[in-house]
Amino acid sequence: MDIGSVNYLPYEDFVDVFGNVVEKCPLITAAVWSRRPFSSLADLEASINDFIDALSESGKEGILRVHPDLTGRDLQSGTLTRESREEQVQAGLDTLTTAEVSRMARLNTEYKDHFGFPFVICARMNNKATILRQLEERLRNERTIERACAIDEVKKICHLRLQGLVVPETSNKL
Amino acid sequence: MDIGSVNYLPYEDFVDVFGNVVEKCPLITAAVWSRRPFSSLADLEASINDFIDALSESGKEGILRVHPDLTGRDLQSGTLTRESREEQVQAGLDTLTTAEVSRMARLNTEYKDHFGFPFVICARMNNKATILRQLEERLRNERTIERACAIDEVKKICHLRLQGLVVPETSNKL
Repeated sequence: MDIGSVNYLPYEDFVDVFGNVVEKCPLITAAVWSRRPFSSLADLEASINDFIDALSESGKEGILRVHPDLTGRDLQSGTLTRESREEQVQAGLDTLTTAEVSRMARLNTEYKDHFGFPFVICARMNNKATILRQLEERLRNERTIERACAIDEVKKICHLRLQGLVVPETSNKL
Repeated sequence: MDIGSVNYLPYEDFVDVFGNVVEKCPLITAAVWSRRPFSSLADLEASINDFIDALSESGKEGILRVHPDLTGRDLQSGTLTRESREEQVQAGLDTLTTAEVSRMARLNTEYKDHFGFPFVICARMNNKATILRQLEERLRNERTIERACAIDEVKKICHLRLQGLVVPETSNKL
């Protein structure tokens, strides 16, 4: 699908296609439909990021709180969204050793108890080693910095999900 | 569940219980968790309403756009959320005559083409006759007024869903 086709989608089809580019937040996709026509994929992505940035701090925390735990109960029970499952599997999170699963669970719990939202990271830009290392490092962040860091990861995830759905424009550069 | 128990819920359980008080917008529930402790059910409801009111106009339209059509494809195909199905059934929308279904479909399409979001009404406070009449009347509203009217209906739906989940406080009045 190219951006021209995207601009012709009624809101229902738009939400069907793009509703989960921000995990479990179809409200965001449905809101940015008001911003059509988009000049490019980058323009659509910028509209989503603008919407996220305009939310209150609790709104941003809301986005984080509807994300699943990495290697958490949703991965074990098969209740992840299709996108999250593919991303966690691609990062090798379905092949952790028992010790790694325990370590991840312990750190996830510590992180959630500390910040009140789950650890969010763009799994496709990482592997299990870098994910575990970042989880340990980010646990030491000040709350405001960590919230901003987590929202940046939401945007990276959104970027890759969008790229999988819309054909990027042909570059005009020679 | 009383409000005291609600205040003790971790965010995951809070979102599990209240995630659909605003249809398909768990982001809102997850955001207002930051406002704990709630002094009462009314306080929780006010927090949700405040969050909705603080959204941009496109954000409010986003909330409306993730709502299903009344008597639409989701009712026919069984893909409504549990809450929406119960509400539509309670209003008798699963027992429309063929002529009523056609009329509702025609008016829904006209409404969506005109406003860019679906007709939202608190079905439990209506029946099929009042729903059809309001659909025809609200079609004539100016856009800004209609958006506000639809958001008021979202809040009524939320109010009744919350009342079904939390035991209201005993009144102190004699």
